[in-house]
Amino acid sequence: MNNRQLSYLIKSREFYKNELLENIMPFWLEHGLDKTNGGVYTCLNRDGSLMDSTKSVWFQGRYAYVCAYAYNHIEKNPLWLAASKSCIDFIEKHCFDTDGHMFFSVSAEGKPIRKRRYVFSETFAAIGMAEYAKAIGDAPYANKALEIFRNIRRMLSTPGFLEPKSFIPCKGHSTTMILVNVALVLMQVCDDPVLKEQIEESIFEIEHSFLHPEYKCILECVNPDGSLIDTCEGRTINPGHGIETAWFLINAGERLGNRTYVDLGLKIFDWQFDWGWDKEYGGIINFRDCKGLPNQDYSQDMKFWWPQCEAIIASLYAYKVTGDDRYLKIHKEVNEWAIKHLKDQQFGEWFGYLHRDGSVAQPAKGNLFKGPFHIPRMLTEAYLLCNQIISK
Amino acid sequence: MNNRQLSYLIKSREFYKNELLENIMPFWLEHGLDKTNGGVYTCLNRDGSLMDSTKSVWFQGRYAYVCAYAYNHIEKNPLWLAASKSCIDFIEKHCFDTDGHMFFSVSAEGKPIRKRRYVFSETFAAIGMAEYAKAIGDAPYANKALEIFRNIRRMLSTPGFLEPKSFIPCKGHSTTMILVNVALVLMQVCDDPVLKEQIEESIFEIEHSFLHPEYKCILECVNPDGSLIDTCEGRTINPGHGIETAWFLINAGERLGNRTYVDLGLKIFDWQFDWGWDKEYGGIINFRDCKGLPNQDYSQDMKFWWPQCEAIIASLYAYKVTGDDRYLKIHKEVNEWAIKHLKDQQFGEWFGYLHRDGSVAQPAKGNLFKGPFHIPRMLTEAYLLCNQIISK
Repeated sequence: MNNRQLSYLIKSREFYKNELLENIMPFWLEHGLDKTNGGVYTCLNRDGSLMDSTKSVWFQGRYAYVCAYAYNHIEKNPLWLAASKSCIDFIEKHCFDTDGHMFFSVSAEGKPIRKRRYVFSETFAAIGMAEYAKAIGDAPYANKALEIFRNIRRMLSTPGFLEPKSFIPCKGHSTTMILVNVALVLMQVCDDPVLKEQIEESIFEIEHSFLHPEYKCILECVNPDGSLIDTCEGRTINPGHGIETAWFLINAGERLGNRTYVDLGLKIFDWQFDWGWDKEYGGIINFRDCKGLPNQDYSQDMKFWWPQCEAIIASLYAYKVTGDDRYLKIHKEVNEWAIKHLKDQQFGEWFGYLHRDGSVAQPAKGNLFKGPFHIPRMLTEAYLLCNQIISK
Repeated sequence: MNNRQLSYLIKSREFYKNELLENIMPFWLEHGLDKTNGGVYTCLNRDGSLMDSTKSVWFQGRYAYVCAYAYNHIEKNPLWLAASKSCIDFIEKHCFDTDGHMFFSVSAEGKPIRKRRYVFSETFAAIGMAEYAKAIGDAPYANKALEIFRNIRRMLSTPGFLEPKSFIPCKGHSTTMILVNVALVLMQVCDDPVLKEQIEESIFEIEHSFLHPEYKCILECVNPDGSLIDTCEGRTINPGHGIETAWFLINAGERLGNRTYVDLGLKIFDWQFDWGWDKEYGGIINFRDCKGLPNQDYSQDMKFWWPQCEAIIASLYAYKVTGDDRYLKIHKEVNEWAIKHLKDQQFGEWFGYLHRDGSVAQPAKGNLFKGPFHIPRMLTEAYLLCNQIISK
């Protein structure tokens, strides 16, 4: 690392911390946190005003996680800890159905609105509780997280519990990859062999089913034997999603001392970045087709906030474990593009939905899918990564 | 009508007929029709090549309808009649589940892929069979259409048959409005009071539940009492959808001799066009929020093919029944914008997905939602409307 690189990393580290402390965390504490019913609202307009009081169950867990994560690594801010606890209490009071499966959305007061055929509400509740348990050194919350984790595995392995959308059986990358991250978060506070088992199972699946060397990409949905489903949906590459997987694997490799996971993560990052980076306009594009056909998702050529965040994290991880300048160059490119186009200089927080050319498609700060998760997680992760690289 | 207007209508009439005969119908007969298994493929790339052999059940009925409709009104082309029959046979052989509810998508050979919690597959099968029955003067197909229609009413009125997506009960505009059109198509060949009853019921609901004078719009999803659901989804206006409703109502008013339906249709057209027409770039935009907040659908500022088609039809209907020059001016504006941006001069057929500025977002000619329906229906309707206006 030369001096120019060092000073770039020092400046970046400061930016991430300041952005978290001065912009993102205050925005959601002020506008998102529900002081009446507990939990967090995410459907906020550009200026933070509430557009819709529907509560995303994903975000109760995600915000619980992010607040505790920032508390554990950035600053012992009691407001963050209280916000985390508020979301966890809301989850426990309102977000579980009688069959143990969680809702997808509930009203401001916690009345069920929608339930979906997935376990993402559960994965986010689990990481929220585990990171909170770490913050307060509390075993009961760690046990609750582990119980949710075991329940996820039970739901996924019970035929018919989660009614499939299609008559044609298929396997999804989303659930597989997220469980790597969930297990890693839980490992901090839970000592149970099921967590390492899950990581090994998931990474085996990623390598042998979802990674397709013939297209140099991760596919989101494959046949049960891992082969390509040759439809518009089956050929879909979600570059940002695989980039997120890449840093989950590098992280798993570091934590478990397994170099093959790190190498797999690096390969996935290289391939997915290649599919995702838009050489004409910059930014990570939403979707591609592995055979180069026109992807049929309406938002295929848009640039969403979260793939940019994942690429910022993954490129720093890749630089940290390889020292290869190429990754720092990629990091700089993505980072600059993201800040330039996503950060709202006028009302704070970041935009979520950009056109291909980087112009803002609509300026709301949140909805049921955007809220306080990818951006503050990225700012915290990136701060820590810069720190680790600088201290080496 | 002055001479300039007359010559515009004569020229337009010719364009619609030629476009149907020389471009749209040959494209789908050549590339879409499945000569091996019967039925129609819709997932075609820009040049007509097959990208995905999944068959949309909606389109089996829609193409059956469009081919028979063109046969009945444009030209007695036996290939069109055979294509219509091919889709109807495919539907009868492969598209019904054992509970009488139809699938949403099936494989090339007709194996079920997905089933959804709606009755749109049924509505399109019904109009396909009814229009085909008209073409060949056949009572059994008319009876089959009526049987499907009765089954739709049974499924909609049986609590729990179509599992709701939400725990909060709500009413949808889509099903309500489409049944006006379905009943009108069936009335040509079926003599049953349930059809008129359906039209009256639907139009009552449109006027008293979905039409919201305080926002001058049609809302897509409302509370059971017709009041606004004040969420991002509840506030969503789909301008093109209401414009389609507008011409269904004008058509119903003409067919049933009910001037109040015509007037309601005109009011809805005026309001929806006002929400939908993009004064900056032209074209009908996908979505708006009735309170002017940022709409959260990812495609909110895109211009899809079908709202333009519906506006071309509706403005001609409005001009026909009022003689008001304003509607002919609107027609000209929409028509020119649509042809300029949607028609593919190089490979034939029309593009489906444009950015707000009219540039092509992705060039495929079809998927599970775009296929031979809105464009050929529009070309036939618009040809007939020009004819009627000219002959007056």
